[in-house]
Amino acid sequence: MEKTITIKSPATIANLVCGFDILGLALEEPYDVMTLTRKDAPGLTIKHIDEYGLTEKPEDNVAGAALLALMEAYETKLGFELTIDKRIKPGSGLGSSAASAAGAVYAANKLIENAFSNDDLIRFAMNGEKVASGVKHADNITPCLLGGVTLIRSIHPLDIIKIDAPELFITVVHPQIEVKTSDARQILKEDISLKKAIRQWGNIAGLVAGLMQKDYELIGRSLEDVIIEPVRSILIPAFDEVKAKCIEAGALGGGISGSGPSIFMLNKNQETALIVEDIMKNIYTRVGIEFKTYVTKLNTKGITTL
Amino acid sequence: MEKTITIKSPATIANLVCGFDILGLALEEPYDVMTLTRKDAPGLTIKHIDEYGLTEKPEDNVAGAALLALMEAYETKLGFELTIDKRIKPGSGLGSSAASAAGAVYAANKLIENAFSNDDLIRFAMNGEKVASGVKHADNITPCLLGGVTLIRSIHPLDIIKIDAPELFITVVHPQIEVKTSDARQILKEDISLKKAIRQWGNIAGLVAGLMQKDYELIGRSLEDVIIEPVRSILIPAFDEVKAKCIEAGALGGGISGSGPSIFMLNKNQETALIVEDIMKNIYTRVGIEFKTYVTKLNTKGITTL
Repeated sequence: MEKTITIKSPATIANLVCGFDILGLALEEPYDVMTLTRKDAPGLTIKHIDEYGLTEKPEDNVAGAALLALMEAYETKLGFELTIDKRIKPGSGLGSSAASAAGAVYAANKLIENAFSNDDLIRFAMNGEKVASGVKHADNITPCLLGGVTLIRSIHPLDIIKIDAPELFITVVHPQIEVKTSDARQILKEDISLKKAIRQWGNIAGLVAGLMQKDYELIGRSLEDVIIEPVRSILIPAFDEVKAKCIEAGALGGGISGSGPSIFMLNKNQETALIVEDIMKNIYTRVGIEFKTYVTKLNTKGITTL
Repeated sequence: MEKTITIKSPATIANLVCGFDILGLALEEPYDVMTLTRKDAPGLTIKHIDEYGLTEKPEDNVAGAALLALMEAYETKLGFELTIDKRIKPGSGLGSSAASAAGAVYAANKLIENAFSNDDLIRFAMNGEKVASGVKHADNITPCLLGGVTLIRSIHPLDIIKIDAPELFITVVHPQIEVKTSDARQILKEDISLKKAIRQWGNIAGLVAGLMQKDYELIGRSLEDVIIEPVRSILIPAFDEVKAKCIEAGALGGGISGSGPSIFMLNKNQETALIVEDIMKNIYTRVGIEFKTYVTKLNTKGITTL
C-alpha cells in the first residue's frame, strides 16, 4: 500500500454569478501542492513550505481540521505528516482554504484505500472551512474535489450534482485588496423581492441548461445576477468597468469570485480570454491597485495525484 | 395551398413546483380541437361548439385576440373562420386560455406558410392571455406551442429554452372549485427571504439538471417549492393530504398546476400514475368535492395537426 502521496488541489470559483451559494467551478490554475505521508503512530504534523505564515497547529490549520475529522471517523488509529505548498493566495476569493481542506482529505482517503465516499470527504473538509471562516460551507470544496461545474442542491442533507459543461476559458483578476467574507455576508439583505428572485431563478435554470446543452450564447445570456452582485460589487474597485469592458470584448460574462475580491470572466476561447486579461491589467494599472491575473481553463478533474 | 386546418392544442402545467413563472410542461390530455379556414375576404368569425358559453366576439375571445394580433402583423389582408371545440375546462389551472390562443395562431401560421417564428406566435398568443386574465404571460403558451418542458428565462426580451426530459406520466386532479388567478396572485408576498430563495434556486437547478440527465431521483428531490406553494395551497382543500399520500405511494412529486385549483403529480411509470389517481379520487370523494382526474403523459410535440 502506498504510504506517501502528492496531489494538486485546484482553485475554485464559488457563487457562480446567478448561482449564489449553489453553483461553483474548478480552475486548472492556480493550485496548491500537498504531500501526505501515512504513519503508524497516531498524531498529525503539518508543515507549510510557502510564504503565507499560516498556523501549523493541526486543530487551527484548515487542512489539519479537515484531516482530524477524517481521522476521528476512521476506525483504525493512524497518523499523518502533511506538507503544504500553498500557491493559492489566502483571501483571494479563489477557494484557498477549500483547496487545503479538500486536498488533505482526498490525499488521506487515497492512503486508506478510499474508505470514504465523496460526500464523506466533503463533510470532513467542511470542518476546515469552519476554521477558515466560521461557516461550514461546501461551495468551494465541492468543485475542488469533483472538478467541473458543481451544484449543491441542498446542504442538509448534502445533495451534490455534477453539471456537464463545454470547454471554458477563464480569466481571473485578483486585485490585492482585502474583502472579509464576514463583511461580504453582512451587507446582504435578509429579504429580496419576489420579482428579482424570479428573474434570478430564470437565469439559474438558463445557466444549467446552457452548460448542459453546450450553448455558449445561452450561458452568456444567463450570466446575470440581480441580487448579490449589485450589493457586493461596491466592495471591489472598478468592478463595473471591468465587467462591462470584458463583455464588450467578447467574454460570455462573469462576476465576483466567491465573496471577492477576485473577478472572473468566462470565455469561449483562449484568444478572448487573453484579450480580457489585457483589459483587466490595463484597468487596475490605471487605477493603481496591485493585481495578479490568471488565464486558465475549466478543470474537469478536480484534485489529482501528481 | 391548404385552406383549412384542424389542430389539437394541449393542456399545460405552468409554475412547475419550484419553477414559478419560468417552467412549464405540456400534457397529452386533455386538449382542445380547433378548425381554422382561411378566407380571402378580411374579417374573423369565431364559433364555439362546446358547453362553456364563451364569447364569440373576436376581440373579447381569447383565440380571437391572438388571431387579430397575428392578422395585424401580417402584410397581406386576409380573413379567417375559426371553430373551437374546447375540452379543457376554463378555470381549471390547466392552461385552457393558452390552448385557445396558441392553437389559433399556430393554425393560422400553417395557412400562411409559416410566415412567423415561434417567438412571434408566442407574442401574438399573449394577447389572448391578456383578454383571459389581464396579464400578458407566456407560462402556458410556451409549453403548449413547443411541447415538452419549457423554460422562460426572460420575458423581456423573450428568451425561451426547451429542456430535454425523460418519459413522465402525469396524474392531474381538478377539484371543481374556483380559484381566481387574481386572488392567487394577490396573496403572494412581494418580498421573500434570501434563505428561502437560495433553497428554491438550488431546487430549480436540480430540477433542470435532473430532467436533462433523466435522473428521476434527482427530479423527485428537486420538486420542492418553499415559496409559492405554502401560501397558495391554502386555497385548495385537501392539498397537503393529496400531495403527501401521492408521494408516499411513489409519485416523484408535484404541486399546484398554474394558480390552481388542479393538482398534478409526476410519475416514473403508468402504474404509479394510476395508483396516484385512485388516491386523489378517494380523498375528494371523502371530502365531498366534485372532481375530474386525468392520467396522461408528457406531451413532447405541443400543438399538432389532426
